[in-house]
This record gives sequence, structure tokens and C-alpha cells, in this order.
Amino acid sequence: MDLSVFFAGTAGSVPTPKRGLPAILLRAGGERILFDCGEGTQHQLLRSVGLPDLDAIFITHLHLDHWLGLPGMIKTFDMRDRDTRLELFGPPGFVATFEKVVRPVIGRTKYPLDVIDLEPHEEIGFDDFVITGFPVKHRVEAFGYAFIEDDRPGKFDAAEAERLGVQAGPDFGRLQRGEIVNGVTPEQVMGEDRRGRRIVYSGDTMPSQTTEVYAADADLLIHEATFCEDERARARETGHSTAAQAAALARDANVKLLALTHLSTRYFPREIREEARGVFENTVIPRDFDAIEVPFPERGDPHLVRAEDVVTPC
Amino acid sequence: MDLSVFFAGTAGSVPTPKRGLPAILLRAGGERILFDCGEGTQHQLLRSVGLPDLDAIFITHLHLDHWLGLPGMIKTFDMRDRDTRLELFGPPGFVATFEKVVRPVIGRTKYPLDVIDLEPHEEIGFDDFVITGFPVKHRVEAFGYAFIEDDRPGKFDAAEAERLGVQAGPDFGRLQRGEIVNGVTPEQVMGEDRRGRRIVYSGDTMPSQTTEVYAADADLLIHEATFCEDERARARETGHSTAAQAAALARDANVKLLALTHLSTRYFPREIREEARGVFENTVIPRDFDAIEVPFPERGDPHLVRAEDVVTPC
Repeated sequence: MDLSVFFAGTAGSVPTPKRGLPAILLRAGGERILFDCGEGTQHQLLRSVGLPDLDAIFITHLHLDHWLGLPGMIKTFDMRDRDTRLELFGPPGFVATFEKVVRPVIGRTKYPLDVIDLEPHEEIGFDDFVITGFPVKHRVEAFGYAFIEDDRPGKFDAAEAERLGVQAGPDFGRLQRGEIVNGVTPEQVMGEDRRGRRIVYSGDTMPSQTTEVYAADADLLIHEATFCEDERARARETGHSTAAQAAALARDANVKLLALTHLSTRYFPREIREEARGVFENTVIPRDFDAIEVPFPERGDPHLVRAEDVVTPC
Repeated sequence: MDLSVFFAGTAGSVPTPKRGLPAILLRAGGERILFDCGEGTQHQLLRSVGLPDLDAIFITHLHLDHWLGLPGMIKTFDMRDRDTRLELFGPPGFVATFEKVVRPVIGRTKYPLDVIDLEPHEEIGFDDFVITGFPVKHRVEAFGYAFIEDDRPGKFDAAEAERLGVQAGPDFGRLQRGEIVNGVTPEQVMGEDRRGRRIVYSGDTMPSQTTEVYAADADLLIHEATFCEDERARARETGHSTAAQAAALARDANVKLLALTHLSTRYFPREIREEARGVFENTVIPRDFDAIEVPFPERGDPHLVRAEDVVTPC
């Protein structure tokens, strides 16, 4: 399964000339899932990779900069005659806010639209993975989200199977699907299950133990870094993280790659990157329209792909 | 007074890769006034000419694509510590909608924010001009807006003044301000008052007589052209205009320049331009980030300035 994350908006609470409001597109096989949907997200996607018929949108919390792109996007889907279901998920209170301020301006959609409050740690199942929302520590109730791929069967040892008398062909497939063939059991020829890939998105939060638990050994942690250490007190007051704090969490969770987002205009991205790399070397600062590819571990490490290598922004 | 119009978003109800939702920035001397504020307008401005501390915003009607950029922009002004007053104007019903769906998500602002329903034909006065809202014909109550510059005094005839015995210097100023000097009256040395410049924006509308009246001899008419003649019936059903209808109105109103906007993805801009130019030659189709300069008539004609000649979009 192809797996990548596309950064549609990497700014914090106000956009900048080059950074839109928070929105991250997860592309997992044929599924297209959006995390957060700041104002202008539909245009950011149209300007870059196109606006796909999203399967689901997960909102981290109810601050305006993380969901104001919803009503316009919902209407656009309607106007282009979408007919497949769209599911919107958020932390407790999401449905109430949606019905109070979004529903009156969008009315009813022609396609099925489900708006759902998630319980903490509730898992939403897709074909080969789940998405789990977990509570983080912000000024309001806020979730981070984890993409957790199903474990994959271990590697099939063809030579061993033949040595045990199983012929190459349909019998190999039976063994791989868990059947016993000619007295040979799958356990004899299959390696241990391989852990599925894991991507964690913190949303807006102070450093949080829950995030660290979910991010343990993750392939990719996307963490907010609204401040640098010079504003550590202010980060705590406002429920945000510093770059160094995010990097320490990535190091302690033993993630493969850390991507920092929700950048403030206070800093040059270089300052944020340098502070983080002082703690955790494998840190990147995606720009809008950059992507991170997350291949199967045996095929390579997660890596940043710059926008200019995949899209023409103008 | 420098006068120009900047096109921050020229799409119709859905954005496209290159066109944002409706927003037009009027720059008149030191005043910065926005007409319509579709989703993402703050980012469109940041990406191009910057987001100025707008003096006023006029909304044409309450369809989502014309005002959804308001809450985010209002919050951004707050976060950058704006302290000057901002006035928002709209047609009757604007205040009620604003208080119902926008106020709950933005809360109170630290700067003074006035939200005002305009009466039809009510004039809002600025230093050297007024803005007037006038009813047009759309599916919901909708206004067009006219920028009407104050008339300027006529040309001063210095040679004639000297011939009549007035000396160059302070006395010339007195005559120009309307005083009698040495028995010479201003009427003897001043030409007739010169009509101020006029820019009319239709908003979303079918061809409307009121628009034509306000646009009479205007320097610039910005008119919607959501359809071409192949969809004339649909234009009428949905309360919009075809390019040919807008051009006929521009011709009948004797405007100097017609700019078509609110473009649908149904058509290539070239098709819209060709249909309009068949009726009224002096028609342009601005792209996002293009501007139209409207100099004093004695200094030149209104003319399109392409984005690439003034800003670097990326």
C-alpha cells in the first residue's frame, strides 16, 4: 500500500504568504483522509494536487484555524455532484459546534454527510488500517490522531517450503493464507508478523505523554512547534509546544522521522529546525505542498519530497 | 488621488487552481476597501499585495462564497493587534446572519468592529468619495456597489487670472478655493467642475436596470459573467448574467472599461471574453492578482495591469 502525507497548510493560527492554515492530507492506498481543515484548504489542494473526494476528515479541536475550511469544502463537493458518503470526525463537542454554526450556512447536502464525536481512543476502521483519536493537552479539548496500519504477515521462506516438500504454485498461496499443506504448517515457512506502519499527528498541544505512547517507534511523527525555547513559558500558557520539546518527545518515542508544523511567523523555519535538530537530528520542516513518503520499512526510510519535485505551485 | 482595483479572487462559487473566491480590493488614496470576502481572501491577499488593515468591507449578498472569508480575517486582525475600527456593511439581513453564525466563532474583538445593514441606495461617506449600495436582481437580496468620487473643481486658467489683474501667488489659491480677489470672481477663471471617477461592482445579479443607471458613464464596471449565451436560460433561473448580457449593459451605460468576474469553470476565459467583445469591445477578464488602474481622465484611460507586472505570485 502506497502511503504518504501531503502538507496542504503548515502555518499556525494566521496564514502567511507561503503557508496556509492547518491541513494535512493522508494518502493510504486508495483512501484520502484529511486531518484539520483550516480556511482555504480546498483552494490549497486545488492549487497543488487537486481536491480529492475525501473519505473522511478528522478535526483535532475546535479552534477556528483548524476547521473553518469545512463549510466551503462541503459546499464544493455538493456543487460538483459528489454522491459518496463523507464522514467528519472530531473530539467531543464537535457535533454541537457543527450543528450550531456550520449547518445553518450549508443547509442539507445531496450526498450523505455524517458528523461524529469521537470517544477518546476510539478506533475508526478502514480497509488496512485504523485511525485513532487520542486526547492531548491544549487550552480546549483536543485530539491527536494516529494512523495505525494492520500488521502484515511475515516473509514467506520459499526455499524452506520447497525443502519441506511443498511445490511452488497454488500450494505456496495456501501456506501464505494460513492453511496447512502436506503436513507443513504456515509457522514453519512464514516469518513473524511485521508491524504495520504508524503515523502520528499531534494537533495543537503541549508535550503530552499520550502522544509519546502512540508515537512509540512510529515511522513519522507530525508534531506542532508553535514556539521556540525563548518562549517556553508562553508555549505552556497557550497550550503549545516548543521545537525542542517536540524533538525531545520524538527522541523518547524513538520515531524514525519528525516533521514540525503549525509554524508561527515569529520565527524563521531555519531557527525552528536548528533548535529541534539539536535534540533530534532526523527532523524536517515541510513547506506547503511538500509531502512525506512512508514506504514499507524494507523498501526505505520515510523521507521528505519537496513541492517543486512533484507539483508546479503556480 | 491614486485609484485602482485589485482582484484578489475572480472565481464563481467554487475556487479553481488559479482563481480564488470573490474578493475585490479598492485602493483609493489611503483607503483600503474590500468588496466581498470569499473563503481564503486573507491568504490570497497575503500571497500577493499583503493584507492591509482594511477600513471597510462591503458584502454583496449572503451566499457563502461571498463572505466566508470574514471570520478568519477578523481573527487575524485581532491576533496582529489591530486597534483601528473596522466596518462591515451588507444588504438587509447581514447583521442577523453575522450575529447568528459568525459571532459565536469569533467572540469579541479587541478592536472596534461595526456590523451594519445598509438601506438600499444609502451612501457611506469617505474623505473624497462615497460608496453606495444598490439593489440588484439575484436569488436572494443582493446589492451592487458604486464608488463615486466627489466632483473636482474645474481647471484654473492662470493666464486669464493674470490678464484680469490677479498676481500669481497666494491670490491664485484664494480664487481656486472660491474667494473673490480684487473683484475677480472664481467663475471668471475656473472651468466647470469635473465629474469624479466612478467604479461600479455588480455583485451576483441578472442584468439589472439599477446597475445600468449607476454605471452610466462609469470609468469601470466590474460585472459578473457566470454564464455564456449557451446557458442563458440557466443564468436567468439562477439569478446570474451571461457575458453578452453584461457587455450589452456596459455598452448601454457607456462605461469606459468592462471587467468580467465570477467566472465559472464551465468555460475557458477566452470564450467569455470573445462573447463579451462581440458586444462591447473594451472588455477585460482579470486573473487573480491583476489590477485595474483608474487614473484621472486627463491622465489616461482605465487599464488592466497584469499580476506578473506587479507581484511575484510564488
